[in-house]
Amino acid sequence: MKKRILTGDRTTGKLHLGHFIGSLQNRVKLQDEYDTLILLADVQALTTHFSNPQLINASIYDVAIDNLSVGLNPEKVTFVQQSQVSAIAELTVFYSMLVSVNSLRHNPTIKTEAKQYGYDDLTYGFLGYPVSQAADITFCNADLVPVGDDQLPHMEQARKIVRRFNDLYGETIKVPKELLSDTPRLPGIDGNSKMGKSLGNAIYLSDDKDTVIAKIKSALTDKNRIAISDQGNPDICTVSLYHNAFNCEEYPNICDMCRKAKIGCVACKKALYTKLNAILNPFRERRAYYEHHKSEVRDIIVSGTNRANAIGLDTMLKVKESMKISI
Amino acid sequence: MKKRILTGDRTTGKLHLGHFIGSLQNRVKLQDEYDTLILLADVQALTTHFSNPQLINASIYDVAIDNLSVGLNPEKVTFVQQSQVSAIAELTVFYSMLVSVNSLRHNPTIKTEAKQYGYDDLTYGFLGYPVSQAADITFCNADLVPVGDDQLPHMEQARKIVRRFNDLYGETIKVPKELLSDTPRLPGIDGNSKMGKSLGNAIYLSDDKDTVIAKIKSALTDKNRIAISDQGNPDICTVSLYHNAFNCEEYPNICDMCRKAKIGCVACKKALYTKLNAILNPFRERRAYYEHHKSEVRDIIVSGTNRANAIGLDTMLKVKESMKISI
Repeated sequence: MKKRILTGDRTTGKLHLGHFIGSLQNRVKLQDEYDTLILLADVQALTTHFSNPQLINASIYDVAIDNLSVGLNPEKVTFVQQSQVSAIAELTVFYSMLVSVNSLRHNPTIKTEAKQYGYDDLTYGFLGYPVSQAADITFCNADLVPVGDDQLPHMEQARKIVRRFNDLYGETIKVPKELLSDTPRLPGIDGNSKMGKSLGNAIYLSDDKDTVIAKIKSALTDKNRIAISDQGNPDICTVSLYHNAFNCEEYPNICDMCRKAKIGCVACKKALYTKLNAILNPFRERRAYYEHHKSEVRDIIVSGTNRANAIGLDTMLKVKESMKISI
Repeated sequence: MKKRILTGDRTTGKLHLGHFIGSLQNRVKLQDEYDTLILLADVQALTTHFSNPQLINASIYDVAIDNLSVGLNPEKVTFVQQSQVSAIAELTVFYSMLVSVNSLRHNPTIKTEAKQYGYDDLTYGFLGYPVSQAADITFCNADLVPVGDDQLPHMEQARKIVRRFNDLYGETIKVPKELLSDTPRLPGIDGNSKMGKSLGNAIYLSDDKDTVIAKIKSALTDKNRIAISDQGNPDICTVSLYHNAFNCEEYPNICDMCRKAKIGCVACKKALYTKLNAILNPFRERRAYYEHHKSEVRDIIVSGTNRANAIGLDTMLKVKESMKISI
């Protein structure tokens, strides 16, 4: 039996290179070794985007196609539409009895995100999204959850809930572990430390060749390097960080040439967008296929979600038996 | 089409005369006119009793039998085990996006109950139980909810959620109305203004004849009336309030005799327990039947819950379509 991984994306817009470097790339590597469930997290999307159903709707397909485009094989991985899995909602409700309001309020990631979204008055659903995440992870008894270190408080919360559950009702649910990613965060093309949908500084997996070229041409470099003969500082150059992420074999040489003023920003950017488009080209081919076969994407989501519901039903039978609410 | 009523009981112990006077009596009256769903509220029971699964387990049957014993006809009403209806959990999660944490914290009933249970640090589930109640009411598009006035803040919260939902996603869910009960609260036999399971001052629907006699004999009367020749004050006598609730035709006369010292407490109590046992006797007969036919009770709960799930599935299809998360 393969170990199971639970991962996924909020369906709040198309995915970008930051998602690729941070998680999608890794998913592709892991898909043979692990039974991978990819959550199309439309319920979590609602916690922040409940007033934008059109975006969430479009994003369910967009995010699925983004994942398929990078090489995730629908024969190997399972796509799951979160809102269609009743076990997740049921577990969320049961777990909500085992978590105090204060522990959620003090969750550092909740605090940071609430600030980021400018929330003074949190909704009940937003405050509880770590509870809902614990349900995401455990409805399928996942062994591992690939996360960045900003997600560690949520993993700890999930483990606390599971341990509490098992203490109260008997060993029922697997205590999940994180698979910590060591990939540094990809900055936006404007140099902002985060590439974000809402920041307008992202290169999307769905961007065409010319858009990528134009975006890289506009990317922030070392501001102090004005003439081509000036020596550059690649440590403060976005383009250089992208070379590190996407063109690692040439990266040391490019840094060296930049420091010695042997390569100009125009040529350096050209090397980057050429490389990026070379990476993105096979993705674009797969994307084109799925965009012309949307009913196939729908079938992938529906059959994956059916599998998840079968797994979830089995979990809920055990959970309800342990809680003594089966009749 | 009959209008639909949603009502129910937390499965945290057997029901007592306070429940009978406050709601069960009324349910029996309404069962012909309305399509009545009676929720065996085991999920709501978890909000306060999550660490006592044995009690919740036993109470699912106890509460069903209490309801059947008073004359609710399983051919007319639908018994629904809350934890087995996934639509309720799903709606709870969706509604949680539409309610602020502060509005729940300021809910006067939540405040009172938190104080009553001695909660400093609320659980997330307890804080959110009005959200869950809104889901209880609306998963079946109930027209009316019989409530006491302490439940009015929850009804208002439910309506707020439904209006918000309909504003955001289009008219989908019926705005529920309360059917306000004007029955005064039945005090405990110790004179405490509330008859409560946890207060040890309750007469249960399942108490046998001798237990009822013993409990009424121990009930608090007017403390100032020491000798039988003293004039009594029925306004401060528990037994008199019970006569008012259960023996209303004789109540004015009994009060009059008490004030004039024409009846002693012993005789007055005897009149009461005789009347109570006369009321309870047919309940006991039905109870005896169901306690010897537990599998029939199980079938009643299972088939009612199946009906509820069919109703809930239909609601969720509409809800998800409105929210544009159907694929």
